[in-house]
Amino acid sequence: MNVLIVYAHPEPRSLNGALKDFAVQHLRAAGHAVQVSDLYAMEWNATLAASEIPERVHHRADILREQEKLRWADTVIFQFPLWWFSMPAIMKGWVERVYTLGFGYGVGEHSDRRWGDRYGEGTLSGKRAMLVVTAGGWESHYSPRGINGAVDELLFPIHHGILYYPGMEVLPPFLVYKARSMGEQRFAAITEQLGQRLDTLATTPPIPYRRQNHGDYDIPAMILKADIAPAASGFAAHLA
Amino acid sequence: MNVLIVYAHPEPRSLNGALKDFAVQHLRAAGHAVQVSDLYAMEWNATLAASEIPERVHHRADILREQEKLRWADTVIFQFPLWWFSMPAIMKGWVERVYTLGFGYGVGEHSDRRWGDRYGEGTLSGKRAMLVVTAGGWESHYSPRGINGAVDELLFPIHHGILYYPGMEVLPPFLVYKARSMGEQRFAAITEQLGQRLDTLATTPPIPYRRQNHGDYDIPAMILKADIAPAASGFAAHLA
Repeated sequence: MNVLIVYAHPEPRSLNGALKDFAVQHLRAAGHAVQVSDLYAMEWNATLAASEIPERVHHRADILREQEKLRWADTVIFQFPLWWFSMPAIMKGWVERVYTLGFGYGVGEHSDRRWGDRYGEGTLSGKRAMLVVTAGGWESHYSPRGINGAVDELLFPIHHGILYYPGMEVLPPFLVYKARSMGEQRFAAITEQLGQRLDTLATTPPIPYRRQNHGDYDIPAMILKADIAPAASGFAAHLA
Repeated sequence: MNVLIVYAHPEPRSLNGALKDFAVQHLRAAGHAVQVSDLYAMEWNATLAASEIPERVHHRADILREQEKLRWADTVIFQFPLWWFSMPAIMKGWVERVYTLGFGYGVGEHSDRRWGDRYGEGTLSGKRAMLVVTAGGWESHYSPRGINGAVDELLFPIHHGILYYPGMEVLPPFLVYKARSMGEQRFAAITEQLGQRLDTLATTPPIPYRRQNHGDYDIPAMILKADIAPAASGFAAHLA
């Protein structure tokens, strides 16, 4: 299997750096091919420029390289620390610049009966994706009634809107809380759990998001049909 | 009133540029003082560097200037196009770099009985904030059962996690959908609506998020107490 790790942390000697190194070694030892896009080490340009706006786009070499890696990959792991309840700006800028018109969006027929190939279809369909996320707060702070907001809702815009949108199946995330209190024993336990997730990338059931073009949504209003989970609303309604 | 507009769009001759210019003129005509942080025009550095990690921080001049503008402001407007269901990377990088330890987080007593001054208290308490957001999709796509996810949930990580966290009251957002189909007539209607929102910045009731340190949450677990909205979970549970 080909695995791309898109990784964002400014400090190599960090928990994130150690978890990324562990993942690379673990996957290679299992016979997989691994590429890493280490965004800080690459000094990735996070800012989508006016010259990259669709109508006038000439794709730069850095973007084409990342698109090639995505095409090569069977599975894409996005690893980052949760900063202000989302991915770091450098990774958000990777998405904005790499997901170009015709690659990340604007794929397929756009008409009143078909709003493109997205949400389960698209350039990256057939691939799998998983987030590996560290957070300074406690697990309870991110629980369904925790003050920071439930983690599955905080990650929905990434899971559904960035990974599932261009077609990838989304695996449940691997989360590390209290990331600032990490002794040797806890690190060993966490890498063992992460190793199990890496060993089962091909077999773990994905989050069952509804596909756009398979009858659940009215097109072009793109609202769930009245008879589909009639009592549900909000993010959870998009789970089959 | 002092109003700071933090603005991110790469193209001055865009709908966003026109709305920003309208807001500046409208607010000044009403006698308010306005500053604009035009992040693209400023060539804002979006990438939080290892040298800016808390333990070794030496605040750079660009950060200190933005913190000074925030201290000066009574109201802060964040205006941006919704890219991949969140703010542009350049604005996310503004948050990451300007919200330094002791300014944006890590404010106040941190103990088992008080987890800092945040979520309704903090450096920016007493100020008001409002998002002005454009989206290419239709309003129905962002409705409670729309495929993109309900807009109030998509914006929660920004509203609650970035604006309310350091103490600002959060006004309901001003949203423009179908941003790519904008004739003169529609633009006139939208600026009239925006003008009304700008005229009522001081009086519009804020979103009633629960305050962290006023009895609704167990500390330090930071979970809503069992008798507070006992049936609620997810983002909506944090509305009083």
